[in-house]
Amino acid sequence: MINKYFRPQFIECTIIISMKTLIIYTHPEPQSMNGAMFTTAVDTLTQAGHEVQVSDLYAMQFNPVSDRANFTSIHDPAFYKQQLEEIYATRVNGFAPSIEEEQRKVEWCDLMIWQFPLWWFSAPAILKGWVDRVFAMGRFYGQGHIYETGFFHDKKALLSLTTGGGEADYVQGGLNGDLAGILRPLHRGILEFTGFSVLRPHVVYGPARQSAEERAHELEAWKTRLIHIIDESPIGIGAY
Amino acid sequence: MINKYFRPQFIECTIIISMKTLIIYTHPEPQSMNGAMFTTAVDTLTQAGHEVQVSDLYAMQFNPVSDRANFTSIHDPAFYKQQLEEIYATRVNGFAPSIEEEQRKVEWCDLMIWQFPLWWFSAPAILKGWVDRVFAMGRFYGQGHIYETGFFHDKKALLSLTTGGGEADYVQGGLNGDLAGILRPLHRGILEFTGFSVLRPHVVYGPARQSAEERAHELEAWKTRLIHIIDESPIGIGAY
Repeated sequence: MINKYFRPQFIECTIIISMKTLIIYTHPEPQSMNGAMFTTAVDTLTQAGHEVQVSDLYAMQFNPVSDRANFTSIHDPAFYKQQLEEIYATRVNGFAPSIEEEQRKVEWCDLMIWQFPLWWFSAPAILKGWVDRVFAMGRFYGQGHIYETGFFHDKKALLSLTTGGGEADYVQGGLNGDLAGILRPLHRGILEFTGFSVLRPHVVYGPARQSAEERAHELEAWKTRLIHIIDESPIGIGAY
Repeated sequence: MINKYFRPQFIECTIIISMKTLIIYTHPEPQSMNGAMFTTAVDTLTQAGHEVQVSDLYAMQFNPVSDRANFTSIHDPAFYKQQLEEIYATRVNGFAPSIEEEQRKVEWCDLMIWQFPLWWFSAPAILKGWVDRVFAMGRFYGQGHIYETGFFHDKKALLSLTTGGGEADYVQGGLNGDLAGILRPLHRGILEFTGFSVLRPHVVYGPARQSAEERAHELEAWKTRLIHIIDESPIGIGAY
């Protein structure tokens, strides 16, 4: 029976804002702290209602050497100028399938997370080469589209990394100097260069020397951060 | 007939001080400016009387992915901790032949030159991975041997690179910021970390936009620098 007098009811609801998240994971040992942080991120973001895609570079046996194998097209067979080949491949859909697939993941995502160990003040080669090959001129930047006018100005990025030394080694005056300076080529030269807004890096210092309990605590902190990641504001690396 | 009164003669002589030089060269196109700078360095240093060894990473098809393939030995088959495997391999001579060969070149040299294009504010992945795999704990650093106490304190290193943009893009306040900050992870985190004294980097800005005449002039300047390279003093990157 329908009530004669229609009266709107108060409806309790929760709006789930779903983010498209891409996790690029780099470690040769799945049992590592990086492996645990990767799994934690996949599980936490999925349970929070976000869409998740991953690239597990070691498991994929991703080849990080940038050369003609990036392409199915050839612009100039006599002289290999990588950026000109990239611009041409962008025009004729000439990227190798394995590169095209990674490019689409990046273009798809709202948030990109890199999970990796800091090796030699930088990313492991397999991750650096993923950038060398996938971040192609024409497709990901160029023709005035860099930094503030970058194609990816509506996307966020976050570096999640482990270090060898303790936190005191990565500050100004410490053994290795300020971590911000160490990460600058990644933050500014790759992410902000293509337009990404950079979130505060997530750093686990010296997991090799942590107890199982300390590592569990770190994973809990990472999980807590990820649950609220959608509310975070970029830190802004900027020029200098 | 021998003169009764022996009188020392003034003898004119040139002392050639020979340096052992190692050039690590990284570019997918031999006809590139990097290729020309590599050839210039090999020729100039050889003609100046120095010994020269090279690693042409693209021609060697060097695999830059660091994993168990670095070793013939296995310390822990159940859990891959790279630095522990490196320490073990140092003890039992367990490095893969291709890695051992590169390690011996570095240990042999007085001066190491890296010739590479700056990609994404850093070295191409094939060069980064050469470091990831060859610069092994135990063999190249560790047990207190880092920075000032590094094993390679009697060696010098020089980064010779090309950039995409012009010089004005790589200064403080320029488009990309100060080049010293961009190169810091390489200079401080790899070279000084293992004890190398760092010479002033040699930079050719934007060769892709240079005329043939300008590039020839650049090669001449590189040659002139190399002829006198033995007299150069390190710039000293240092902590910060």
